[in-house]
Amino acid sequence: MKHFEEYQTIIAKGIEEYQFTRKPSELYEPLNHLLNYGGKRLRPIMLLMACDFFGGNLDEALPPALAVEFFHNFTLIHDDIMDGAFLRRGFPTIHAQYGINTGILSGDALLIKSYQFFENLEPPLFKECLQLFSETAALLCEGQQQDVNFENTSKVSYKDYLRMISNKTAVLTAAALKIGALIAGADKKDAQHLYNYGLNVGIAFQIMDDYLDVFGNREKFGKKHAGDIFENKKTILYLIAKQFADEKDKEELEFWYSKKTDNIDKIYSVEKIFRKVQVDRKVLRLVTRYNDKSRYYLNKIDCSDAQKQPFIELNNYLLKREF
Amino acid sequence: MKHFEEYQTIIAKGIEEYQFTRKPSELYEPLNHLLNYGGKRLRPIMLLMACDFFGGNLDEALPPALAVEFFHNFTLIHDDIMDGAFLRRGFPTIHAQYGINTGILSGDALLIKSYQFFENLEPPLFKECLQLFSETAALLCEGQQQDVNFENTSKVSYKDYLRMISNKTAVLTAAALKIGALIAGADKKDAQHLYNYGLNVGIAFQIMDDYLDVFGNREKFGKKHAGDIFENKKTILYLIAKQFADEKDKEELEFWYSKKTDNIDKIYSVEKIFRKVQVDRKVLRLVTRYNDKSRYYLNKIDCSDAQKQPFIELNNYLLKREF
Repeated sequence: MKHFEEYQTIIAKGIEEYQFTRKPSELYEPLNHLLNYGGKRLRPIMLLMACDFFGGNLDEALPPALAVEFFHNFTLIHDDIMDGAFLRRGFPTIHAQYGINTGILSGDALLIKSYQFFENLEPPLFKECLQLFSETAALLCEGQQQDVNFENTSKVSYKDYLRMISNKTAVLTAAALKIGALIAGADKKDAQHLYNYGLNVGIAFQIMDDYLDVFGNREKFGKKHAGDIFENKKTILYLIAKQFADEKDKEELEFWYSKKTDNIDKIYSVEKIFRKVQVDRKVLRLVTRYNDKSRYYLNKIDCSDAQKQPFIELNNYLLKREF
Repeated sequence: MKHFEEYQTIIAKGIEEYQFTRKPSELYEPLNHLLNYGGKRLRPIMLLMACDFFGGNLDEALPPALAVEFFHNFTLIHDDIMDGAFLRRGFPTIHAQYGINTGILSGDALLIKSYQFFENLEPPLFKECLQLFSETAALLCEGQQQDVNFENTSKVSYKDYLRMISNKTAVLTAAALKIGALIAGADKKDAQHLYNYGLNVGIAFQIMDDYLDVFGNREKFGKKHAGDIFENKKTILYLIAKQFADEKDKEELEFWYSKKTDNIDKIYSVEKIFRKVQVDRKVLRLVTRYNDKSRYYLNKIDCSDAQKQPFIELNNYLLKREF
């Protein structure tokens, strides 16, 4: 298997090669800009890694890898409209720059293009990949709606939250890995193990993201400290705190989470409760649990640990992550 | 072949049978409502007709027919947001009732579902149909953008207009017919002839729609008389009038089309110019031309006129249409 940077280069070249050249430019130019801005491109890279892992042809896997990246960007465009977000990757979002109508329509065109990227595959593989892709896409829509619903209700359970992050982020990582495996002609069971590996890594990553928002190294994390608390996001930290806090602290939590304020007292008070009920330890335990679960599925794939090294490294990176 | 009403019944039953049952309901319920409201459902009916025409299995064609109908409704939801339209089929549009965010996200879910409706087809047919479907979907996005562009420019040519209506409406009718033919296992050439038939019928229909807006029987047409003039839409009537009017009339046309007004003088003045340059005759000649073109492609299909009767009736209906 190649180094991470090599996969990254393949994806970057692919995005350049597959720029939109069709008209009208009002529809496609905003997409070319957005795709060029970059982003981590983890999902298409994982698709290539999976294909390589099972000895597949990376040229064949490249367009489907771009499909996953284009699809991810489609969700960002529409989510940014829904969230009223004006910045993405340090640049204005499409709807902020070109208006909501362009955001909607260009997003649609990007989703359709992502389907077209599978057309280099032979019919049986094409169908198998598209079935997984469509089901994944449906789950992402559902996850986004669940996330929206959470803002308007106080009755969010821990289980609801896990399903939401699973749908909203983890299933796409899982699907990317499985599609890579299928293109390489992997055994169906192994492809499914890799899917489950990806699903659990994805969940662990998202939980870690919630953790780092509050407990991360403030210099390395690179995002606004405690942004989720400022925005009253019902993350796993909040849900665990609410579960274990005494009545008085629970009331205080609910008080702060009903206020839209940048008040530093809010952050201080909420963090105090988080520490009191040891939210940090409990959340890290959860990260470990999902990380272990992902290792369990990885172990089921019948090949040496040496071969699995890139995936194991991903697990280790996850646990050591400070930012 | 069956009667029109029989196809209509099959589609109505199909829509009932394939209601969304997944969660969250905030995402899917608005879609079930919209699909139940009805509409003419011409496109899925044409898909079934085409399949029947070539002796295909209507049970196999039903889900793809629903795909075309769901896809059409997806475009309506997103277009209604872009156009700021608050009524559709006599009911509030989704975004008017549930907000823009639901309109965007439910629309996305509907587009994804329309892809899933092809999954009952065997891999080679699945791929062939989806390639056509995706290309058609991309053209529809382009047509919508072209339509938006027309509002902001005075330089719309007659050719631009025909491409826009072809993309925005005719290609989906054409694709519906071709998909029906492909599912029935029709000869590729015949399937393409039927596509070209549908494309030209679709263009003729759209031009006739523009004509009836101004020259139609006011009682039968059922839409607001001269709605396109009120809204300054650069329809084929306007484009032809601008081409043939003298300088003074051209100036007057441009004057009225730069004003957003419900003033009856506007309608009176514009219609006077339309009649003066015989826009009505010229437009009807165009309808006839595209109608003839569609007949030309229908004739290429190697079977008796008796078999082609339902399609010929569609042509005749088009020419006699008063509403």
